[in-house]
Amino acid sequence: MKTNKEVTLVKIGGNVIDDAEALTNTLMAFANIKGPKILVHGGGKEASRMAQKLGIQPQMIDGRRITDAPMLDVAVMTYAGLLNKKIVAQLQALGTSSIGFSGADGNLILSEKRKNTTTDFGFVGDVVSVNDQMLSMFLEEGIVPVFCAITHDGAGQLLNTNADTITSALGVALSGKYSVKITYCFEKKGVLINTEDDNSVISTITQSKYNDLIAIGAIHSGMIPKLDNCFYALSKGVQQIIIGHHSVIGESNALYTTIQL
Amino acid sequence: MKTNKEVTLVKIGGNVIDDAEALTNTLMAFANIKGPKILVHGGGKEASRMAQKLGIQPQMIDGRRITDAPMLDVAVMTYAGLLNKKIVAQLQALGTSSIGFSGADGNLILSEKRKNTTTDFGFVGDVVSVNDQMLSMFLEEGIVPVFCAITHDGAGQLLNTNADTITSALGVALSGKYSVKITYCFEKKGVLINTEDDNSVISTITQSKYNDLIAIGAIHSGMIPKLDNCFYALSKGVQQIIIGHHSVIGESNALYTTIQL
Repeated sequence: MKTNKEVTLVKIGGNVIDDAEALTNTLMAFANIKGPKILVHGGGKEASRMAQKLGIQPQMIDGRRITDAPMLDVAVMTYAGLLNKKIVAQLQALGTSSIGFSGADGNLILSEKRKNTTTDFGFVGDVVSVNDQMLSMFLEEGIVPVFCAITHDGAGQLLNTNADTITSALGVALSGKYSVKITYCFEKKGVLINTEDDNSVISTITQSKYNDLIAIGAIHSGMIPKLDNCFYALSKGVQQIIIGHHSVIGESNALYTTIQL
Repeated sequence: MKTNKEVTLVKIGGNVIDDAEALTNTLMAFANIKGPKILVHGGGKEASRMAQKLGIQPQMIDGRRITDAPMLDVAVMTYAGLLNKKIVAQLQALGTSSIGFSGADGNLILSEKRKNTTTDFGFVGDVVSVNDQMLSMFLEEGIVPVFCAITHDGAGQLLNTNADTITSALGVALSGKYSVKITYCFEKKGVLINTEDDNSVISTITQSKYNDLIAIGAIHSGMIPKLDNCFYALSKGVQQIIIGHHSVIGESNALYTTIQL
C-alpha cells in the first residue's frame, strides 16, 4: 500500500568519490536530508588505479570496458570494500546510522549476467529484482542504506552493475510504497544545452523536449543512457528526478535539471 | 530480558578462507545450522598477497605486524570487500539470507585505536561496544550477519580488529538476551596436548586445567590469547565455547575442545 511518506535517493558519481573534500561536503549535506533516504555511489577512478597498480590490463571491446574476473575482484574490493566502508564510517561520524550494502547483502538487488548482446561484457549484471520488503524494513528502522554498484545473480556470482541503473531500480521498487525523489549528482550543474557553457543548465526536460534535444544533437553519448534511465524510472512510478552538481544536495539556490514525463 | 533462544556464533579463520573447497563445505555446514546464527571471518593470506602485489611493505615491530594506512586500506578492501561479499553471495546461493557487516555498518562494533602500549600498532581497534539492539533486530528478522574483522571508532576512522575478539565481543553482547554458543574454527582438530600429534585433542579445558597446561608449557604462544579470549567470554555470560577444525560445524562425530570456566 502506498503511503504519503517520501524517500530520497541520492546517487553520487566518480568525481565526488575521487575528491575527499567534495565527498565530505556531500556526505554532510546528505546527512542533513530529513526523512528516509538512500545513498548510491559509483566507483570513481579508484578501481582503475587499483587495477593498474595490480598490473591488471583493462580489457576493452569497441571502446567499452569488459569486466573480466580480475577486474570484478578489483571492483568488489574497491566499491564494496574501501569506498563503501569509508562512506559508512563518515556517515556514522555525522550521526547518520547507515549500513553499506552490495546487492548480495539481504538479496537486496538480484541481477543476471548480461546476455543477448553481440559482445560479452563479462561479469556485468542487469537488475532483475529488488528486495523492497527488506529495504523498507531498514528505512522504517531509521537505517540509511548505502549501496555500491555490485549485485549478485543468486547463484553465488557477484556482478558489476551501473550505479545509475541501481538507483532507478531502487526508486522504482520503493515507489509502490513511498513517494520517491531521486537526485543524480555528477560533475556538471545539470544537463547543459551547450557543453562549453557550465551555466547553460536546462531547467526542465520532458520526454518530448528530450526527443527534440536528441534530434538537434544537443544531448548525445553518455547523457542518453542517463536520461533514458530517468524516464524509465518516472514511467514506473518515481515521483521526482533531478540531475545536478553534488552541491545541489545542500544548496537551496543551486541550478539543476528537473526530468519530467 | 534473557530468552531461552539460542544463537550460534561461528568464527572461521584464514586456512578456510584460503581454500575455496573448504570454504564452500564450511558455508554449506553453516547454512544448515538451525536458529539464529552469526558468522565471523578472518582474512587469510589474501590481504598479505594483495599488499605484496601492490608493493606495500609489511611494517613489523617485534615480529608483530603494524597496520599502517596503506595496510588498513588493503585490509578493508580484502576483508570487507572481496572476502565478505563472496561469502555473502555464496550463503545467498545456499538459501541463507545473510548480510555482510563491518563494525561501521549500523555502528555494530565501535572500537578505539589501541593505546597505552609501548608500541604503536597503527590502525588497530580494541572493541568498546556492540550495538546489540540492532544485532538482535537482524536475528529476529531471520537475517544472518556475516562480520569481517574491520571496526570503526565512531569518528570516521576504520580500524583493523582481531576476528576472535570480535566473535567474543558479539557473544558477550548477545548473552544478555540469548543463550550463546561459540564455535572457533581453525586448522587443528582442537587444542592439542602434543602439537606433533593432530589427534591429541584435549576434550575439555577448564580455567584451572588451563593454568596447569600453561605451567607445563603445553599451551603457549598463539593459543594463549585465543584461550584468554574464550575464558573472558564465558565469564561474561557466553554459555558454550568449542574450538575445533572447520569440519566440526557439519560433523557430529568430530573431535573438538570444549572450553569451560
